[in-house]
Amino acid sequence: MSRLDLFIDRMVSQRACLDFAIAQTAAMPGPVFELGLGNGRTYHHMREKIEGRDIYVFERAIASHPDSTPAAEFALLGDVMETLPAALERFGPTASLIHADLGGHNRAKNDAFARRVSPLIEPLLAEGGLMVSSDRMYFEGLQELPLPEGAVEGRCFIYRK
Amino acid sequence: MSRLDLFIDRMVSQRACLDFAIAQTAAMPGPVFELGLGNGRTYHHMREKIEGRDIYVFERAIASHPDSTPAAEFALLGDVMETLPAALERFGPTASLIHADLGGHNRAKNDAFARRVSPLIEPLLAEGGLMVSSDRMYFEGLQELPLPEGAVEGRCFIYRK
Ligand SMILES: C[S@@+](CC[C@H](N)C(=O)[O-])C[C@H]1O[C@@H](n2cnc3c(N)ncnc32)[C@H](O)[C@@H]1O
Ligand code: NI
Ligand code: NI
Repeated sequence: MSRLDLFIDRMVSQRACLDFAIAQTAAMPGPVFELGLGNGRTYHHMREKIEGRDIYVFERAIASHPDSTPAAEFALLGDVMETLPAALERFGPTASLIHADLGGHNRAKNDAFARRVSPLIEPLLAEGGLMVSSDRMYFEGLQELPLPEGAVEGRCFIYRK
Repeated sequence: MSRLDLFIDRMVSQRACLDFAIAQTAAMPGPVFELGLGNGRTYHHMREKIEGRDIYVFERAIASHPDSTPAAEFALLGDVMETLPAALERFGPTASLIHADLGGHNRAKNDAFARRVSPLIEPLLAEGGLMVSSDRMYFEGLQELPLPEGAVEGRCFIYRK
């Protein structure tokens, strides 16, 4: 399997999981959190598909495409290890959807980080809220859901509170 | 259509066109040219799928993933406006397959560049050789082929000498 194959599987799976999670949570009023902006492609996709909910972006250093950059009041700048606890104080357990794509190329590092960040993400979700991640997460009380059609096993994960 | 949708279509189309063109030219001995290395994903794919042919990479500044970086003797460094004419002197009309993904986000710029670079690419192809591009090219004597299954109209182009 080439890096191109792997990358396509990851992108296609992200989209399938996001579309599924956006539809499942459409009736929930709480905000949506995008953890990791990167180039801004998934954020652009979420902005196109999500109506009536605020989307907040957590990012260390904004470097996205101009048309995929959040307004200042929706950008929560800094290390998620600090901005996630701050968001819990500010928003409480209200998020309808959280998407995380924080990993790099090092799988061991990604996994270690997923273990550290999972307990900071879990309390932010509202009851019934969904979490979509490119890495396996380590939650206490969330339920892992089967992947929607089109997503490739192991390339993304969905959890429900 | 989101930037994520567009990006997926481009990647999937690149792969479909490359796989088709690699198979079509499998019996030809001439070298393969990758114009624009970028992250190196398509180069990685070509290296996995192409057997018995040299793959030369044309790139201004190598910034690819370590496992997708060509050995020094297969990297033709510099602006393609200069390295393509040099390659014609060195290789003659022998290339079995040329893949170009040189564009950025500005469509008008990409199109202007495609017009300038097309006459430098055309003479490098061997009789029966194929050219795959993310941008529409402007060739004198090459024939545009219908896209293979899985490729999205307008996201890639294939030409035969
Ligand atoms: C979109 S990227 C290629 C991505 C690649 N197909 C991949 O899958 O990762 C385009 C690359 O073309 C290179 N490039 C653009 N114009 C060039 C030129 N005139 N001469 C040499 N390289 C050029 C850029 O430096 C960039 O690395
Ligand atoms: Ni890497
Ligand atoms: Ni752009």
